[in-house]
Amino acid sequence: MGLRVDRIKKAQVLMREQGMVGIMIMNHDDYRYFFGRDWAQPRAIIPFRGPPILISFAGEEPELRDYVGEAEVKLFTHVGEQISDVTKTFRSLVQSVGDFEEGAKPRVGMQMWFETPAFLVDLFRRVNPQLELVPSDPVMDALRSVKEPEEIKLMREAQRIAGLGMDRVRDMLRPGVTAHEVATEVLYTMMKAGAERTSTPVYVNFGVYTCMLHGGLSPRPLEEGNLAIIDLTPQVDGYCGNLARTFVLGEPDEKQQELFDAYSEMIVATRELMKPGATVKDLDAKGNEICSAHGLGDYHVDGISHGIGLRFEETPASTIIKQHRNVRLQEGMTMTIGHTILAIPGVGGLRNEDVYLVTPDGAEILHPYPYEFVAGTDVPGAMRSQTY
Amino acid sequence: MGLRVDRIKKAQVLMREQGMVGIMIMNHDDYRYFFGRDWAQPRAIIPFRGPPILISFAGEEPELRDYVGEAEVKLFTHVGEQISDVTKTFRSLVQSVGDFEEGAKPRVGMQMWFETPAFLVDLFRRVNPQLELVPSDPVMDALRSVKEPEEIKLMREAQRIAGLGMDRVRDMLRPGVTAHEVATEVLYTMMKAGAERTSTPVYVNFGVYTCMLHGGLSPRPLEEGNLAIIDLTPQVDGYCGNLARTFVLGEPDEKQQELFDAYSEMIVATRELMKPGATVKDLDAKGNEICSAHGLGDYHVDGISHGIGLRFEETPASTIIKQHRNVRLQEGMTMTIGHTILAIPGVGGLRNEDVYLVTPDGAEILHPYPYEFVAGTDVPGAMRSQTY
Repeated sequence: MGLRVDRIKKAQVLMREQGMVGIMIMNHDDYRYFFGRDWAQPRAIIPFRGPPILISFAGEEPELRDYVGEAEVKLFTHVGEQISDVTKTFRSLVQSVGDFEEGAKPRVGMQMWFETPAFLVDLFRRVNPQLELVPSDPVMDALRSVKEPEEIKLMREAQRIAGLGMDRVRDMLRPGVTAHEVATEVLYTMMKAGAERTSTPVYVNFGVYTCMLHGGLSPRPLEEGNLAIIDLTPQVDGYCGNLARTFVLGEPDEKQQELFDAYSEMIVATRELMKPGATVKDLDAKGNEICSAHGLGDYHVDGISHGIGLRFEETPASTIIKQHRNVRLQEGMTMTIGHTILAIPGVGGLRNEDVYLVTPDGAEILHPYPYEFVAGTDVPGAMRSQTY
Repeated sequence: MGLRVDRIKKAQVLMREQGMVGIMIMNHDDYRYFFGRDWAQPRAIIPFRGPPILISFAGEEPELRDYVGEAEVKLFTHVGEQISDVTKTFRSLVQSVGDFEEGAKPRVGMQMWFETPAFLVDLFRRVNPQLELVPSDPVMDALRSVKEPEEIKLMREAQRIAGLGMDRVRDMLRPGVTAHEVATEVLYTMMKAGAERTSTPVYVNFGVYTCMLHGGLSPRPLEEGNLAIIDLTPQVDGYCGNLARTFVLGEPDEKQQELFDAYSEMIVATRELMKPGATVKDLDAKGNEICSAHGLGDYHVDGISHGIGLRFEETPASTIIKQHRNVRLQEGMTMTIGHTILAIPGVGGLRNEDVYLVTPDGAEILHPYPYEFVAGTDVPGAMRSQTY
């Protein structure tokens, strides 16, 4: 996509509003957003005015120059330590702003998520005591939450690829298959179809392991009567897909069917409510109401939806940051529905997750994928498509 | 491997020596080391005495109980917030220790690496102002640096699997093949052979992209005359493998051959020097001397070796933490040789990395894999095995 000067300029306007002298980038998603490509060790500074500064190792300079071409950027290349360049840059930015209020420190924005390691932040603070490090979210969320058409296109493609992966899963769900076998084949299928990688490991959870909030690869092979949750997160040009489906191997028992029915109702209700102005808190309240009506209120956990884009969970990241539950949705945001695990401990759990676009008429699915609960039988018609 | 009470007791002795009231675990590698298995969101406390405390979500409790069986542990399970349990635990630990020196805060150890996010550390500090958070390295390095026989066995298996992946790579290196195609097939091969996942993405770098210190997937297909670096990092039971090879598609030119020859000499010399008491600084000094003799001194970058185990780069992590360059090696440590990229900008670079055991006689390779520089030809004998 190339270097995005338009996005950099918008960020600079927002940075001035937020009183930031610059944003220090140390994560893949912001780096991709501004520079249109990934870099193994993403390091850059967006100053409050002027060209961005890209930081790389000396040996990588030719590729970086080749990539940025005629775009106006500064390159800092180095053999070892890069922190002194960073410190000097911020010092000169602070000087160029001039007077700050008495006692107020100049602010530098940084993404404070899972990818930002504590020891680098500590180092930054130690060598830049004159600066106040603040989350860059007020700038980056304002830029990134509402998606551009080209972003939505890539996210649709990621969902399409996830669907091909799920087709492969459905072929494989038979008694005795292992979670590792399923993960191996589905990852291969998605990469062959064009996924660069996945945002998370492929989750394949069988039986009681379907109660795991995150899961992994279940240790025991699939058995008749088991629930199986498969959660797929392929990436295309850095944009994340997210497709989860729960299957039952054979005929569902009463409790399994109850979980499925309640979950389906939650999805339908959430789709309708997912309009500009709604919050995840609203959506969860509705979900809780539905689960209670099914006698499953004790098992309802908040978190039916989260934002998704260049980061697998982005604002509103309702299950990571409590305050995000009150973020008002906007038209053009991309959100999942079906993130929560509805699980009865010792019995099993269910998750059916897709990615949607927020519209004034409710949630619009990016790429539909069937809901089929029963798997693992060759009897024609047994794979019943649920079209709720 | 089950819960490792022996390791927990050793950690407690070391914690008392270091004046820590407990270690807060939030990373996969320490969690595996103590508890013998991984958990999607690893959270635990090792107190300075008494049973360990495992923290999980409520729905995950049955599996966790099933796993720990009769072992003496405390389980904290919760629906949402877990931080208040953690705070209470440390408060009661501090009380049980009793008097602290005037002005001294009780210390809590935590791994301060890439996996430990700044926002969680900030949260921990905010809600536990009475505690001093310190790196857990003095305890964990003392425990983990020298490997037990069962650990070495798993690391050998990871290297064997990496070798199968590299065999697949060699089959595929032909003009026009893309980095993504190679990565897709090699990942599939390694997972089929038993790898759970890889520690890093599969790196496939062609042409000038071989100069990248970390790399990724090169954007342009492989061409005749290109160098190609493939870096593989499969995991087995959490233990990391690391195998990198550089190939040239067709006959090497003079500069490419010079890079290969210098690198081979560096490997041989490093193997001999890698004995108890040596430091990575010593090894790099020798490497620099060899490169200079080849007229490549300008292109030598420090970092020929790093520790490896449950973490892909662990102490001594010579290219991440400067002070680790002075760590004295011990018999039984596992280290890579061949981590540095020897690269001429605009021409290309070379990396040939394997995992070794430190012994009094020098480095012992965990699983040998041939060094063949020339790839992509079907002429018999053209794939020449270099047995330096």
